Amino acid sequence: MTLTQKTANATRLAELAIARCRALASFSEDMGSLRRTFLSLPMRDVHREIAAWLAPLSMNARVDAVGNLRAVYPGADSSVPRLLLGSHLDTVPNAGIYDGMLGVVLAISILEGLEGRHLPYSIELVGFSEEEGVRFGIPFIGSRALAGRIDDELLSKQDSAGISVRKAIELFGLNPGEIPDAVIDKNACAYLEFHIEQGPVLESLGRPLGVVEAIAGQTRMDFLFTGRANHAGTTPMNLRFDAMAGAAEWIVVVERTARTIPGLVATVGAVETRPGATNVIASEARVSLDVRNAKDGLRNRAVEQLTRDAQEIARARGLSVSSNVRMNQPAVPMDATLSSQIEGAVREVGCEPHRMASGAGHDAMILAEKIPSAMIFLRTPNGISHDPAESVLVDDVAKAIECGLQLLDQLSSQPLFHPRTPRA
Amino acid sequence: MTLTQKTANATRLAELAIARCRALASFSEDMGSLRRTFLSLPMRDVHREIAAWLAPLSMNARVDAVGNLRAVYPGADSSVPRLLLGSHLDTVPNAGIYDGMLGVVLAISILEGLEGRHLPYSIELVGFSEEEGVRFGIPFIGSRALAGRIDDELLSKQDSAGISVRKAIELFGLNPGEIPDAVIDKNACAYLEFHIEQGPVLESLGRPLGVVEAIAGQTRMDFLFTGRANHAGTTPMNLRFDAMAGAAEWIVVVERTARTIPGLVATVGAVETRPGATNVIASEARVSLDVRNAKDGLRNRAVEQLTRDAQEIARARGLSVSSNVRMNQPAVPMDATLSSQIEGAVREVGCEPHRMASGAGHDAMILAEKIPSAMIFLRTPNGISHDPAESVLVDDVAKAIECGLQLLDQLSSQPLFHPRTPRA
Repeated sequence: MTLTQKTANATRLAELAIARCRALASFSEDMGSLRRTFLSLPMRDVHREIAAWLAPLSMNARVDAVGNLRAVYPGADSSVPRLLLGSHLDTVPNAGIYDGMLGVVLAISILEGLEGRHLPYSIELVGFSEEEGVRFGIPFIGSRALAGRIDDELLSKQDSAGISVRKAIELFGLNPGEIPDAVIDKNACAYLEFHIEQGPVLESLGRPLGVVEAIAGQTRMDFLFTGRANHAGTTPMNLRFDAMAGAAEWIVVVERTARTIPGLVATVGAVETRPGATNVIASEARVSLDVRNAKDGLRNRAVEQLTRDAQEIARARGLSVSSNVRMNQPAVPMDATLSSQIEGAVREVGCEPHRMASGAGHDAMILAEKIPSAMIFLRTPNGISHDPAESVLVDDVAKAIECGLQLLDQLSSQPLFHPRTPRA
Repeated sequence: MTLTQKTANATRLAELAIARCRALASFSEDMGSLRRTFLSLPMRDVHREIAAWLAPLSMNARVDAVGNLRAVYPGADSSVPRLLLGSHLDTVPNAGIYDGMLGVVLAISILEGLEGRHLPYSIELVGFSEEEGVRFGIPFIGSRALAGRIDDELLSKQDSAGISVRKAIELFGLNPGEIPDAVIDKNACAYLEFHIEQGPVLESLGRPLGVVEAIAGQTRMDFLFTGRANHAGTTPMNLRFDAMAGAAEWIVVVERTARTIPGLVATVGAVETRPGATNVIASEARVSLDVRNAKDGLRNRAVEQLTRDAQEIARARGLSVSSNVRMNQPAVPMDATLSSQIEGAVREVGCEPHRMASGAGHDAMILAEKIPSAMIFLRTPNGISHDPAESVLVDDVAKAIECGLQLLDQLSSQPLFHPRTPRA
């Protein structure tokens, strides 16, 4: 195939992939907007639709016991290593149509792009049933099942209607007793996921594709500044213990600190004052903190510094401050060998790769506990995600498909993806 | 009477005044805490109680058409000038027992301290029915009636139960048609009000009594900073449009600005972010602003500067900001002659007076439109008011009574308080 033919072919597959994302978006729990949570009814339609797309590839789709769609594109024989390729099929409320779904349909496009060729390894398509954590407040239920990490505590969690995960599985017509069978195959040797960046970095650099080096670790905390409520008219400035003024000083420090540490992001997204009246000095200001970085040491030091800053600001003002950690999740590095293979493939299809950390969590984080895992990001126009305005560029999707096909060929010559030599 | 006798007498009257505040606090709409709003049922008990205290002074208490308690201590004859002396009888929810009530019972104590003497002017005790604005969201309904400022718009205002001011007056057994009769007597020549400071200034100076030179003007505004909601993990610091970070920078400027302008107070008491999630950069931050000063020019310039600061901070960050003025109330100077008379009387009873602005509004503000008005503040321990922990020192109350008696004597020699010479 000539280069022009290859590009034309990839563009055709990309257009089809985007059309398929639109088709999947029509299956929603809400009228007029997309919401498709774990084991909701429209997930059945999604499974049926994808199964129909897989049939021409002679792939049989099955649904595992937590609702993941799974289908194998066989390799030379049944003993070959297996590459897992996929993303998630659930969405947030009022979602865009690419977050998750694009990774699944891209995997199908790449399999179609093989045009019937088989590789020295098999490829398992996975459409995860749950990544966003919307229904049960716990993310990654789908990939946890593949990692063998579904326990009774998780199965007992209830949604807002009082339905447990276990019950939801049964109501969907699945058997919780078969969850152990959802664990990855013994031949599984790697996981690869395409996903939109959901941020503005690739766009700001003018690059279509990014190579994820690590899923950033994150700390989430609450800080409560406490002062003294007083009359806004009768209390002179020098006799105040204004919790909000102290919190504001600290929020400025949070931003300034994050700006000086490469790759660190720190966010105060939620602020509440008490009593919260125009004419009363705030006795309490409760502010959230979200800090992320690919390097745990750097993140932890930043969090410690910001906590000390809060204490110093409070002390200097006669306030008190308390804090509590709501989440402290270490960074997850992606597989270095796979990532440099991806980097080569991106370059091979004529793009300049950008190595980056993912600020958001992804299923690859969970699979990485078990097998080498890697991710490829697609540029996200305006960085907009989790919003109906979420979009992708068709040329970027075409590049991703070309890159995926290139990568599959490269991997054929990697030892990891070769049938293991039977032991002597 | 010797000085020691005078002090002993004032202390006895002060203890009685405090006991009376406690007695009035037992008449509440709420179980276990004090709330007594405009024309609520417990206000009848308050009227009955005070009427009983006034009977030994041969004063007949009446209730005017908006529920103010009024009773005249006569002067030499019916044509003499009249001094109005009082404060308000309504409270905020979960109130302290001195705000308002102390001014009314102090007036009674002072009349009792006259020990039957009559002055060249009459004294009208006023217990205002409404100052706090709790029930109808409009303060000063009691004093507005004395100033002839009750109109149909005000009478049509409804409380949260849909009852109009007019209806509330009728339900209390009063006649809205008689509201014009509530206007101050043609002989009324001055208004004097004792009130707790409700702030920490006198305490910080170690002085029992303050002379109010002016009720500060106040501006209340809302500022809305608007940026762009984005993922807290995937959006690098340099590509953010964080509405809360901008608002925080401005809140710091508000405090710093107020600290540099003598007597100015500026408060951001209410802050709200949207979407208000830990892991989402705020697209909106809505913050309140309350600015007060006794000098309108100074206050207005400060408000203009702070508005420009908000715009500059927003512009530098790629945010937008809008603001709207919810209240813009000019300062009300107290009568200079009365205030210097008060200053003299405070000194005469052995205290160092402190001239100050009132950061809060008071009925004296409304009466000042019609007649010379003045206020005496009592030190408020810890500056705590509008709270069950509100308190006064018995010695301060005694000094206030001594000061009041001294002042009444001084006023006897003031031309304003002498019967007008009949015109030739």
